[in-house]
Amino acid sequence: MAKNLVRRKVHFSPDNVDIVVEAGTNLLEAAIDAGVHINASCGGAGVCGTCKVLIEKGEVESTRTEKLSEEEYKQGLRQACQSRVVTDLTVYVPAESRLEKAVVSREGKKVSEVLATGWRFKPPLNKLFVELPPPTLEDNISDLSRLFKGIKQRYNLSNLWMDFGVVKNLAKVLRKGDWKITVTTLVTAAKPRTKEWRRPRVINIEPGDTREKHYSLAFDIGTTTVCGQLLDLNRGKIIAESIDYNGQISYGADVITRIAYCQKPGGLKKLQQAVVATINGVIEELLVQSQVDAKYIGHIMLAGNTTMTQILLGLDPKYIRLAPYTPVANFFPPVRANSLGIKVRKQVYLFTFPAVASYVGGDIVSGIVGAGVHQRKDLTFFMDIGTNGEIVVGNSDWLATASCSAGPAFEGGGIKHGMVATNGAIENFDINPSNLEPEIGTIGGAKPKGICGSGLINIVAGLLEAGVIGQNGKFNPDLPSKRIRRGSDGCEYVLCWAPETQIGKDIVITEVDIDNLLRAKGAMYAGCQTLTRGVGMSCCADFERVIIAGAFGSHIDIERAITIGLLPDLPVDRFVFIGNGSLLGARLTSFSRDLLDDARRVANMMTNFELSENVDFMNNYVAALFLPHTNADEFPSVKKKLDRLSKGKLKRRITA
Amino acid sequence: MAKNLVRRKVHFSPDNVDIVVEAGTNLLEAAIDAGVHINASCGGAGVCGTCKVLIEKGEVESTRTEKLSEEEYKQGLRQACQSRVVTDLTVYVPAESRLEKAVVSREGKKVSEVLATGWRFKPPLNKLFVELPPPTLEDNISDLSRLFKGIKQRYNLSNLWMDFGVVKNLAKVLRKGDWKITVTTLVTAAKPRTKEWRRPRVINIEPGDTREKHYSLAFDIGTTTVCGQLLDLNRGKIIAESIDYNGQISYGADVITRIAYCQKPGGLKKLQQAVVATINGVIEELLVQSQVDAKYIGHIMLAGNTTMTQILLGLDPKYIRLAPYTPVANFFPPVRANSLGIKVRKQVYLFTFPAVASYVGGDIVSGIVGAGVHQRKDLTFFMDIGTNGEIVVGNSDWLATASCSAGPAFEGGGIKHGMVATNGAIENFDINPSNLEPEIGTIGGAKPKGICGSGLINIVAGLLEAGVIGQNGKFNPDLPSKRIRRGSDGCEYVLCWAPETQIGKDIVITEVDIDNLLRAKGAMYAGCQTLTRGVGMSCCADFERVIIAGAFGSHIDIERAITIGLLPDLPVDRFVFIGNGSLLGARLTSFSRDLLDDARRVANMMTNFELSENVDFMNNYVAALFLPHTNADEFPSVKKKLDRLSKGKLKRRITA
Repeated sequence: MAKNLVRRKVHFSPDNVDIVVEAGTNLLEAAIDAGVHINASCGGAGVCGTCKVLIEKGEVESTRTEKLSEEEYKQGLRQACQSRVVTDLTVYVPAESRLEKAVVSREGKKVSEVLATGWRFKPPLNKLFVELPPPTLEDNISDLSRLFKGIKQRYNLSNLWMDFGVVKNLAKVLRKGDWKITVTTLVTAAKPRTKEWRRPRVINIEPGDTREKHYSLAFDIGTTTVCGQLLDLNRGKIIAESIDYNGQISYGADVITRIAYCQKPGGLKKLQQAVVATINGVIEELLVQSQVDAKYIGHIMLAGNTTMTQILLGLDPKYIRLAPYTPVANFFPPVRANSLGIKVRKQVYLFTFPAVASYVGGDIVSGIVGAGVHQRKDLTFFMDIGTNGEIVVGNSDWLATASCSAGPAFEGGGIKHGMVATNGAIENFDINPSNLEPEIGTIGGAKPKGICGSGLINIVAGLLEAGVIGQNGKFNPDLPSKRIRRGSDGCEYVLCWAPETQIGKDIVITEVDIDNLLRAKGAMYAGCQTLTRGVGMSCCADFERVIIAGAFGSHIDIERAITIGLLPDLPVDRFVFIGNGSLLGARLTSFSRDLLDDARRVANMMTNFELSENVDFMNNYVAALFLPHTNADEFPSVKKKLDRLSKGKLKRRITA
Repeated sequence: MAKNLVRRKVHFSPDNVDIVVEAGTNLLEAAIDAGVHINASCGGAGVCGTCKVLIEKGEVESTRTEKLSEEEYKQGLRQACQSRVVTDLTVYVPAESRLEKAVVSREGKKVSEVLATGWRFKPPLNKLFVELPPPTLEDNISDLSRLFKGIKQRYNLSNLWMDFGVVKNLAKVLRKGDWKITVTTLVTAAKPRTKEWRRPRVINIEPGDTREKHYSLAFDIGTTTVCGQLLDLNRGKIIAESIDYNGQISYGADVITRIAYCQKPGGLKKLQQAVVATINGVIEELLVQSQVDAKYIGHIMLAGNTTMTQILLGLDPKYIRLAPYTPVANFFPPVRANSLGIKVRKQVYLFTFPAVASYVGGDIVSGIVGAGVHQRKDLTFFMDIGTNGEIVVGNSDWLATASCSAGPAFEGGGIKHGMVATNGAIENFDINPSNLEPEIGTIGGAKPKGICGSGLINIVAGLLEAGVIGQNGKFNPDLPSKRIRRGSDGCEYVLCWAPETQIGKDIVITEVDIDNLLRAKGAMYAGCQTLTRGVGMSCCADFERVIIAGAFGSHIDIERAITIGLLPDLPVDRFVFIGNGSLLGARLTSFSRDLLDDARRVANMMTNFELSENVDFMNNYVAALFLPHTNADEFPSVKKKLDRLSKGKLKRRITA
C-alpha cells in the first residue's frame, strides 16, 4: 500500500489513549507518540517479539517474523514494530507487552544506603545573603564591583566567577531587593591533585533573603529507568522521589540497540529528546509532590552509564559500540540543563558523573563514591548486575574495574517467559522435593505473567537443589513429573499452568533459558575472576565486603545466587545491598563538595580491564558455564550443600 | 489620521532606495528600515532639527516644531522624525541631513600609532597541531583523554578547559583528520595579582593542519562609528580594515539620547540589533577584502565606551545616565559572539575591554594600553576629545581619569552649520587680516556644506587672532566687513555665500556657536586642571607627553587648539596623535596576551574623578570660558602671540 496523507485514528487499550496519525505510520511509533509504553527490546528491528499487540478493530499492513507464531497471527496478534496503520484501529496491548509503571520501584532487601563516611555536609551549591550600601556620587563603583565588595566583606570570599546571565539581571535585582540580595554560588571543580576548589561561580541572584529555599536535584539515568530526587540543601534531606521508565525504552531495551538507533537519521536527537521528556516528567512529579517552586532549584547532579550520558548530552555514542570502544570523553564540563531541553531555570547547571570507559560509566563511579569504597582500607568487591554487569575491586589505594556483557537474562531478556520485575513476575520459587511441585510467589501477589531476573536465579537454584536439573543446566529426563516435558525449545519445566496465569498460557522455564542464565552468570563470575587475578590476587576469599548495587541486585537471594555461581562463595554477612548506587552517589555529592571532588579522583583512579578480547576472561567464562562452576573448589559451600542434598535424595529414593 | 494597515511605498533619493511600509509609519523609522542614514541627533525627539527631508511627492502627516522655519515648511521640508507616511512618497534627503560613508575614515595628521613597548608577540589565541596514535584495544582511553595526552606530550600543556561544543565534535573531527588535528586554544584571563594565566580553553578543533589560517578581529565600537580590522595572528599584521557609521546613529547622536531610547519598550533590543548589524556589515566587508574564510576567525577583541559596551551586551544602560551614574560592571566575561547575533562561528569569543566608570569606558582603557601610558615612568596626559571628553593623567605607577561632558560642538552638534567631518565640511580656515576675507578648505575639496569640529577650532582661533572676535568670544562690531552681520542668533560671520555652497544658503558662524565651543573646550580644559590638581600637581607644564586619541583629535591643529585654550600651552613637540586608540589597543591585545592582561590591570589602576558635582571643576570651568582662559598665565605663549598681533593691528590701524 502506498503511504499517503490520509489521517487515521488509533485507539490503544487498556490505556484508553487515542492518537491521529497518517495512514502508513509504523504502529510502534504511533504508540510512542501516544505515550503508550510498549516493550520493544530490539528497538523495532522485529527480532525480539516483545511488542506484540492485538488488533481488535481495523486493518494493519504487517510482516510476520518468526517471533510470531501462525496461531498468534490468526488470533489477530501483530508485532507493533512490523505493522503499519491502514485504517482506523483499536489496538489492545497485552499484559506481557506492557511496561507497568506501578512497580517500577519497590523496596529492596536490607539496603544499607549511606556507606560513604567522613564527608562534611557542605553542598557545592551555596547561598549567601548580602546587604550592600547604596551607591552615592562619592562611591559610584559598578554594581558588580559593589556586589563583589559586599561578598568579600561579609564572607571573605573573593575571586568569584560571574555568569553572564547574572550580570544581565544585576542592576534590576539589586534595586528590586533594595540592595539586599541572595547570591547563589556553585563550585564546579577542584584543581587537579589538590583539594583546592576553582573559584566559585555565581549562578543566580535573587532580591531579598531567600536562603531558606535551597534545593537541588539528583538523578540516575538508567538504560531502563530514570530515578530522581529533590533535595533540601539546607537540611540534607530527600524531600521527594520519583521514578519512571526511560522513554528511550521504546527504541530498544539495551544500550547496543540504542546506539544502533542513534545511527539512523535523527535517531540521536529522538533518543535525546525521549530521555529529556522522561526527566522533565520526573521533575514535574517531584515539584508536585514537594510543592517547591522550580525557581529555587539550583543544580542537577546526574549519573548514568557512558552511553546514557553521551546521548543525554547529544554526543553520538557510535564509537562506544565499535572496537576499540572509545567514549568521547570521561569528563564532561557542567552544562546548562535547559540547553539540553530540561525544563528548569536558565541558571541551573547539570553535572554528569565522570566515566572510566565505554562500559564503566558515571553510574559506577557514583556508586563507588556513594558506597565509600574509595575511603576504606578494606578490600571491597562492588558489583552492579545487569545486562551489562560492572564490577570493581579495590580500596582507598587502588581501584580496578571491568564490565562483562552478561546479556539481558537478568532483566528477563532472552528468556521465553522473561519479563522485567513488575507486577505478576514470578520472583520466589520453592520446589517440593518429593513431588517436584513448585511453590511460586509473584511481585505484587498478582497472577503470574512471566519470570523476572531474580526469579530466574531462584528457580534455577531451586531446580538444581532438587536435582531437576544437573550441574550442566540440563534437565534430568528421568524424573516422574508432568511438569517436566519437551517443548519447542527442548526440555522445559512448567511453573504455572495456563489457567493460573495472566497470559492464558503455561509459563515454563526451558533449557534454553537456563543456558542463557548460565552465560549471564558465567560472564559476571568470569569477570570477577579475571579482574581479581589481573590485580594479582589469587582468590575472591580476600574480599572483606561485597557491595551489590542496582535495582536488580537488591532483590536477589544471596545464597541462591551463590548456589548458581553468580556471586562468590563467601559468608552471607559480607554482602551489602545499596540499591541504586548511582542515585546514592548523585545525592551525596549534592550534599558534599568533598565527595564531588572524590568522584573526579575515583574516576581517575579506576583502572579499566578490557575483557572483550581477553583470553583469560574467555577461559574463565567457559569454566563458569556450569552450576556453580566447573572448578568445584571455587564454591566449597555449594559443593557441600549439593553433596548433602544429593545424598538426601539418594536416601529418599532408597527409602521409596 | 487613524493608523491602518494600508501599505505605502516610500522612495528615498538620492540613495534610490524603496521601502514598503504601513501607512502611519514614522518616516525616520522607515528610513532606518530602508538603510538610509539620516542624521537624527536627538533620537527622534524632534528637538535637534537635523533630520529635515524634502517631501517631493505624496503626503505626510507632520508636526512642525520650532526647528523648522515656516519658510522651510512651505518649501516642503519636514522633520522626518515628526512625520508619518500617509500616501506613497518620494523623499529627498538633503546633503545636510545625510550621513556620508565615503569620508567616514580619513588620514589623520602625523599619527604615531604603536606606542606600547616591551610586549611579546604572543596572541591569546593559539593554534596547536597534534598527531595522535589511533586507539587500540590495549589503549582505548576516551577521545578527549587521548587528545589531552597528545597535547601534553607535544606541547607540555596540561589542565586545559574544553568547551562543550568542542567535545561535541571531537569524535568526528579526530577520525576525519585521521588522528591529526589542529587545536585552537584561548587564554581569557590571568589570575589576580599574578601574571599566571588561568588554564587555556580549547575553543575549536579542525581536522588536519590548519595552523597557517589563524585570524582574529579587532573592533572599536564608537557612538558614531564602528571600526573593524581583520588580523593575521601568525604575522601580526592588519590584513583588512573597514569602518561604518554605528547603525544606532538614527536613534540619537549621543549616548544620553541612546540611553533614553533604551527605556522605550523594545528600545534596548533595537539598539543592540542596530550595532550588531553594523558589526556584521563591517565583518562582511573585511572578509570580502581579505578573501579569508570566516571559519578561521578565532576571536574578537572589542573596545567601546561603557554605554556602547552595555548595549552591545544587551545590558540596560539606564543607571549610567542617572546619578550616581553606576555601570552594571566594569569587567565582563568573554561571551560567545554569535549569542549576540554577530555572524561568526559558534566558537568565537568576544572580549570587551574593561571599563573604569560610566563615562570612562573600555575605549579609554584600550587607548591607554595601546599607547603604553601604563608602561612609562614619564608623566603622560592622554585625551580623547569628543562629545564626552575623557582624560587620563599618569604613568606606570598611577593613573587618574575623568570624563568631561563637553557637549556635541566638536562633532558639529549645536552649531548652526555644524556637521560631522565628511565631504564638504569646512576644516581649514585662514583670514586675511586686512580685509577680513576668509580662505576656506573643505574635506574632500567639495563645495562647502557646513563646519566640522576641527574646522570650528580653526575658525574661532583665526577670528580671535584677527581680532574679529574678542577673548570673551563676542564679535567686535566695529569692523568694516559685510561678512560680519547680525543674524537670527545674534552676531555672525559669513564663511561662504550661498552660491558657493552645496546647501544654497550662507554658511555662518554665530556667537551662539562660539559660545558652544567655549563651553566644550572649557569643560575639557577644566577637567584637565581639576584632575591635575586632584592628583596633587600644580600645573600642566609637568606633562612630558600629551597623547591625543580619537578620530577627531587627529585632525585638530595643535597650535590653534592651544590658542583657543582647548589644549594646554606646551611645546608642540610634546603632542602625539594616535588616531583611534581604542582600535589600537584592541589590535595590540589580539597580538599580545601580556597586553590583554595589562588591560585588566590598567582598568583596576585607574582612579576615576567624578566631575559632575565637583566644586573645583565648576570653578575651573567658569574660568575657562574665555579665549584662551581668564587666567592668562595658563597660556603664556598665546598671551604673547595675541599681544603681538594686537600690536600689529594697532600699528596697521595707525598706519592706515
